Parts: sequence; structure tokens; C-alpha cells
Amino acid sequence: MANYSEQIKLAHGGGGSLMQELIHREIVPALDNTSLRQLADSARLEAPGSTLAFTTDSFVVQPLFFPGGDIGTLAVCGTVNDLAARGAKPLALSLAMIIEEGLPLEILQKILHSVGESARQANVNVVTGDTKVVERGQAGQIFLTTSGVGIMRDGLDFTPDRIEPDDVLIINGSIGDHGIAVMSVREHLQFASPVQSDVAPLAEMVQIVLDACGNKIKCMKDPTRGGLASNLNEMAQLVGFILEEEKLPIRKEVLAACDMLGLDVLTVANEGKMIFAVAPDAAQKTLDALHSHPLGRNADVIGRADQRAGLVRLNTHIGGQRILDTPYGEELPRIC
Amino acid sequence: MANYSEQIKLAHGGGGSLMQELIHREIVPALDNTSLRQLADSARLEAPGSTLAFTTDSFVVQPLFFPGGDIGTLAVCGTVNDLAARGAKPLALSLAMIIEEGLPLEILQKILHSVGESARQANVNVVTGDTKVVERGQAGQIFLTTSGVGIMRDGLDFTPDRIEPDDVLIINGSIGDHGIAVMSVREHLQFASPVQSDVAPLAEMVQIVLDACGNKIKCMKDPTRGGLASNLNEMAQLVGFILEEEKLPIRKEVLAACDMLGLDVLTVANEGKMIFAVAPDAAQKTLDALHSHPLGRNADVIGRADQRAGLVRLNTHIGGQRILDTPYGEELPRIC
Repeated sequence: MANYSEQIKLAHGGGGSLMQELIHREIVPALDNTSLRQLADSARLEAPGSTLAFTTDSFVVQPLFFPGGDIGTLAVCGTVNDLAARGAKPLALSLAMIIEEGLPLEILQKILHSVGESARQANVNVVTGDTKVVERGQAGQIFLTTSGVGIMRDGLDFTPDRIEPDDVLIINGSIGDHGIAVMSVREHLQFASPVQSDVAPLAEMVQIVLDACGNKIKCMKDPTRGGLASNLNEMAQLVGFILEEEKLPIRKEVLAACDMLGLDVLTVANEGKMIFAVAPDAAQKTLDALHSHPLGRNADVIGRADQRAGLVRLNTHIGGQRILDTPYGEELPRIC
Repeated sequence: MANYSEQIKLAHGGGGSLMQELIHREIVPALDNTSLRQLADSARLEAPGSTLAFTTDSFVVQPLFFPGGDIGTLAVCGTVNDLAARGAKPLALSLAMIIEEGLPLEILQKILHSVGESARQANVNVVTGDTKVVERGQAGQIFLTTSGVGIMRDGLDFTPDRIEPDDVLIINGSIGDHGIAVMSVREHLQFASPVQSDVAPLAEMVQIVLDACGNKIKCMKDPTRGGLASNLNEMAQLVGFILEEEKLPIRKEVLAACDMLGLDVLTVANEGKMIFAVAPDAAQKTLDALHSHPLGRNADVIGRADQRAGLVRLNTHIGGQRILDTPYGEELPRIC
């Protein structure tokens, strides 16, 4: 287990085991309640007449603009996708901005434009907000925090404890694109065709899958910080998973960049991907539903659940097997 | 009108006219929708079976700890009070933290403890959250963003357009305490008895008032950034207001500090106050209800609405009258 630290480190924000430790040792005990303890992508709330999903995320990505998106796109899609992972249809978003004094108005305008565009694409409104300004050098130009409220489907939840051995793992497309798109700007990497972030709002695509397959969909998760490795480990509560390396959809530029940067693509963040754990008899129907949507066109089966609870394994190209651990911290700081 | 600026200034975050301009020129057009256009303390959402209030606020206060509270107390109470101002009963809160690398764990623990305590006091749970860590020097130690969802009362809303001439203005206690408590630490002011922030969650007190007076309560607003001056100007849409200076509840230490710092107490932030605009025949009932609650013990009438739409005037001690404008920016940066 990770060493416990008396000061906050960058790695505490990395979506890995050090962050899990901070959450379990400090945050959950201080704020203790049943909903929080679930630690799902969004919380479930009972309101008179409906069940709601509620989620929040802060965005501190550097640089603010990258191929395929910017901090504004990310802030909308990240929150929409956390609602989608709980099967919820987005009802409304909030947007809180912490802006650094001296930020050119033009940059703020571009970011607000992206927020508006992404919200329209996700068919949801930003209905409330807040603006704070802090002194120069105190907020990496701009930080955004979005929260979202969604309406959950009657009687359907998608928590990891529903996954059974032999359930099939499906993802809606290639992995690692977002992290590498951001890193390529930061590290001045050149590609023949530049890697674009996959940032996209997935709620509509998820609703199509749920309309087709209902409770045959056992669990969903959007593998952002910590990538597939971290998120599959979080899903591996009562089951384990076996992934097939040759089935993993990875662009060759992404793989090349990972090699160059010494990164494991399985720990790199995605912002437009959803992992589905699906009953075996609904796998084809899930794929069909995904293929009918532009954001699911490249969906494929990448592995399956087995009985070795808590263990995520990868069958490699060359016939070996390796264990995919939760990464410790963050190999890629400020990726979202 | 304020000069328009090509860069963001500290004053853009001050709750004054410059912030209003940023909101109206940039934010609302980019994100345009009916709910946002209301620019209320919280937005109204229609969910199947219930009407929800939804709100968000970021907190960047410096220093993190001050007499009477800290950034954690503030983050919970600020959001609870925005729900309360719309008559909503808090259903759940979210907490997103942006932490600076190197923050002593002890400080984080204290802040989380305050969040937990304030949430218990407000009878609401923090059900979802997010943690990001940024490099040293990039986040003033820690920034918090809370969002809140509340259940609105059936068929009752509390928007400024409901206020009529002769409606009575009531506040639940002394003004300026929060701003001066924070400034006294920043400016090393010494008082015989130190000024404590009034930070407190007001939802329970507001529900008691609404139970007693229902739709006789026309509008409510919690006068945070920009103080009474800014918030009464926001309420003065179809009516004007006349305040009686001699009725304004102000502690003498607060007044002394304002004199020393060159501040107008009417522009100083509060974090445990609610302004009620009330039908004249319900004024006494409102006061009785407020007096029955610990946070409303010092409630009093401070003025009334008249027909001079958009104008807020103050009848002074010495028999004169002055116009209370919306302050331009922020005399007190990073007060919440």
C-alpha cells in the first residue's frame, strides 16, 4: 500500500491508490453518509417523484486548449459522462469559475463558447453559476467546476456489485486519446496526424444502449483519470476481469507517444469513453446499439469478468499474462 | 456604467456592477437559456414529481481560517443559503476541492471537519465530490466549490418581481460581520471583543418563516458579496427601497473597523443573513417566526419598498437621504 503522507502531493489528485487512500481515510469519515460511501461517479438522491443522480468535478487541465477540445468542453462532458455512468439523463448543469486576474477576455470568451456548444451537444442547459477572481498566478489562468443533476431510470442502477462472472466488457472506442492529446501539446510531440482528445458527451449514446438492453447492462464507468487500469480495479469488487490485449482499441500514434513518454496506455485518461459490463446474452445487442450512434461506432468487446474478485488481468499479445494494478498516483498531472 | 476591460480584473469577481456586466455580456449570451437568465441565487428545475433548486459557489477566501469559521464552514453555508433564498429545503450537497501540492494534511483535516459539522448543522449530506491537486503556488492553498440541490415548496417562488410598494424589508440580524471578521485577520486589527463571522446555515430558519407566512413572503436574498447595497439593488426591479439608517443593526466594532478601513458597511459581505421582502400585514408574523429561531433572534425591520423602481435610498441619522448604488467591484477581495 502507498505510504501515507503528511502533506498533499500531486499524486493525491491522480485517480490512483494514493487518492483512494485520501478519500477513504480523510474525506469519507469526515463527511460520513450512505450516499457518499458508495463513491460512485455520481450520487443517487431520492426526491419526491423521481430518483436523481448528482455529481461534481473540478477541471484544472493545462494547457487550457488542446487538439479536440479545451477546458470548457471537458467541464461539460466530464460531468455529463458521470451522470451517464449512472444511467441518468442530464437535467441541468452548474458552472463555477475561478479566474486569475489578467486572463485575456478573449480566452474566457472561447472557453464559454465551448461550454455552450458542448452543453447544446449534450442537450442540457447550464442553469446556474458563480464567478470568483483571484490574484495573478493563483489559479493557472482558470479553473472550472461543473456539477450536474440527472434523472435516473426507474428502478435501474448500475453499481459494480451487479457484475457477475462471464459478464462481457465492452468499450465504445479507442483508449488513451485524451491524455495523449494533452501531453502532445505539453511535450511538443509531433505526429503525422495529431492525436485528438476523445472528449464527448456520452449520455445520449448510453440512453440508446439502456433502451435496448435495460438491466442486462450491469455496470458502467467512464475511465478518466487513472485510465482503464484504475477504473477496472474500482469495478472489480465481487468479480475480477480478464482483458485481451489484442482486442484493446489503441491508435498507433497513441501507442507510439506512450512508448516515447514511458506511459502505460492503460493508465491514460479518456474523456469520451464508457466501459460497459454486460450480461453475455446481451453483448451483441449492446454492440448493435453502440454501433448505431456516432460515438459508439468503434465499440468492441475487450474482455470479461471472472471469479477472481479484485483482480484485473491482461492476456498479452505474446501469450503471457500480467496483473493490472491501480496506479499509485498520477503519471500525467493536470490532464483534466 | 463601468469601463469594459479586455482583461479580467479582481473587481470582476466582486459582486458589483463590473461582475454584472461580465455576466450579462459574456456568460449569459454564451450559455443562453431561460433558467440561467433569471440569475437567481439558485436555479429552478422541474423534475418528475418535484420542483428543485440547484446552485453552485466557489470559495477562495483568504485566510482560510477566521474568527467564527473557515473556508469549509463557508462552503457549506453559502450553498445552503442560496437554496434557502429560493425557499428550498436542502436535499444534498457536492464538494469539489482544488488543493495545492504541499498543503499540510492537518489543514485539510480541519477544513473537512468544518464541512462535516456545518453539513450536520444544516441537516444535509455531502453526497458526492472530487479532488484535484495542482502545483505549489497555484491555488491559494485550497479552493472549494460546493453545489446544492434542494426541494422547492409547491407553487411558491420568491423572485424580485413579486415585491410590491409598501412591502416591508426585514433582516435577521447585524450586517457586515463576515467581511470584517476576515479583514480583521488580514489587516491585523485588534478589537476589545473580536468580530466573529456570522457564517451560518439559514435553511431551517427560512422554513419556519415560510411555514408561518407562506406566500406573504415575496422575495428573499442572502446579502453576501457586495453586501446589502448590491443585493438590494438586485431586488429593486419593479420597486425601489427606502432603508432607515437608524434601524440598521450594525455592531459598533464593525462600524469602527469600516471607518478605519474606509469601507461602507452596506457593501460588506454577510454569510448568515437573509433579507425578506414581506407583505405589510405579515411583517409581525415574520418577525415572530424569526425571533423563535436562534439565528433570527435579532431580526428587525430595516426599510420598505416604494414605487421608485430601481432606486435604493437610505434615510440617514441626521435627516438626509443618500442613494445606495451597486458598488463597482470589490472593496474586499477573496472574502468568500
